[in-house]
Amino acid sequence: MRDEATAFVPGHVTGFFSAHPAEDPTIAGSRGAGLTLSDGVEVTVRPTNDAASTVVLDGTDVTVDPVETVLETLGVTARVEAESAVPIGAGFGVSGAMALGTALAANRAFDRALSTNELVTIAHGAEVTAGTGLGDVVAQAHGGIPIRLEPGGPHENELDSIPDRSRVEYVSFGQLSTADVLSGDTDALDAAGERALARVVGEPTLESFAVASRQFAREAGLLTDRVADAIEDVATVDGEASMAMLGETVFALGTGLSDAGYDPAVCETHSAGATLR
Amino acid sequence: MRDEATAFVPGHVTGFFSAHPAEDPTIAGSRGAGLTLSDGVEVTVRPTNDAASTVVLDGTDVTVDPVETVLETLGVTARVEAESAVPIGAGFGVSGAMALGTALAANRAFDRALSTNELVTIAHGAEVTAGTGLGDVVAQAHGGIPIRLEPGGPHENELDSIPDRSRVEYVSFGQLSTADVLSGDTDALDAAGERALARVVGEPTLESFAVASRQFAREAGLLTDRVADAIEDVATVDGEASMAMLGETVFALGTGLSDAGYDPAVCETHSAGATLR
Repeated sequence: MRDEATAFVPGHVTGFFSAHPAEDPTIAGSRGAGLTLSDGVEVTVRPTNDAASTVVLDGTDVTVDPVETVLETLGVTARVEAESAVPIGAGFGVSGAMALGTALAANRAFDRALSTNELVTIAHGAEVTAGTGLGDVVAQAHGGIPIRLEPGGPHENELDSIPDRSRVEYVSFGQLSTADVLSGDTDALDAAGERALARVVGEPTLESFAVASRQFAREAGLLTDRVADAIEDVATVDGEASMAMLGETVFALGTGLSDAGYDPAVCETHSAGATLR
Repeated sequence: MRDEATAFVPGHVTGFFSAHPAEDPTIAGSRGAGLTLSDGVEVTVRPTNDAASTVVLDGTDVTVDPVETVLETLGVTARVEAESAVPIGAGFGVSGAMALGTALAANRAFDRALSTNELVTIAHGAEVTAGTGLGDVVAQAHGGIPIRLEPGGPHENELDSIPDRSRVEYVSFGQLSTADVLSGDTDALDAAGERALARVVGEPTLESFAVASRQFAREAGLLTDRVADAIEDVATVDGEASMAMLGETVFALGTGLSDAGYDPAVCETHSAGATLR
């Protein structure tokens, strides 16, 4: 056993998706595509002898169900400290990042000797079971600009990616609950997600990803006024922007948001998946 | 069309493998495991109007069959300039890196709008057809410490990885011909490769990778005297080293070779797969 281990997990903004529930959480998931971000979450795991594990996010004690599930699955008790460079609950995959980062760091801290696919499966299943996400974990394990062709954990899914990179800007106006959206009727959303995926599979470029994402956000009825206005503002200066699923967040390629007069956070697509520090 | 595009592809040292030939080069390949390296190959593709493509490696005109095949498959004529930070022909996957880097950079330079999997399939197939490698391309597209569970291109294969990272040292004494080894009887080699893979799948750690690789090198009868001596020297100082398949090259984890008195090149495992610059 080591004193501690730390993992970095990139943030992930989903541009579009369709939900694919299943009894088995390692088979359930989503199709879709998104950007993994150089802004992400750093997760440190320290083995403890306490009766229960504790989880701290940006200095505050929190309860994050997927993280608890990952620790229980690995059979360990630990103090988990996460620092997030991206907003919480705003469509950046923070819960997925915490689950995956915990799996990677705990595997190392406790010398569990599991493979990457095994750890991703555990984190993905924990996230799906908690209802906090359907595709962030596998995307965050992959890095780059992943296209999720088939849902599920690494033993079930099929991934491709857009062979490109980009500066990414984002502004976040607030939170949306993934669980609330996913617990409603998702038929229109799913159909819009499948159309967007077909477009990006036919032309796997950043431009077609941005166009497909905007069309999805409109068709799925998820745009808020503030998000719609910001996307429109970026379009006015010939930029490419869309909404992060699921948060009241706008992301833009290149300098779209700054060109439109916003004061965005700035990062890049992240070429690697989650890694130990 | 752009003036040029540049891709970086990590080097890849295979620790052990078994060969899996097939009629279809996108199905053929190898099982095994290796380290992708932060030392790699940078490939720049410039569209030209010349009658034929030209390929330059470290300033010298060369003929690299997989690169020609990739350009022909994409239907383009270009000047390809590659700079390698790793030795040529010594087990670092330079031919695979050149094929994959050419595919990624040409796709961008010529706006071909293919997906990552499509480009990796083209590069893998070109490398297998040329007989210059069986698994480097898919490993180099993946990054990290890939375990190739099933052979073939991305639509056929199955990959996992060791969730760790390491400083890597290497010394190279000379070249070995991949084509010569693969054209001989590979039964003993294949059996040794399958045993090594079973060991690493059972315990996917860097230590078990090093042990499995050494056992494979011995059992497959590929050790040269200089390589065997260097591995033994590293073992004497409690280090972990093995032979890069296929080259007269020794790689070590951490500071194994320097501790043993060698003057190695030093790099790290590379957490990302091949990327555009």
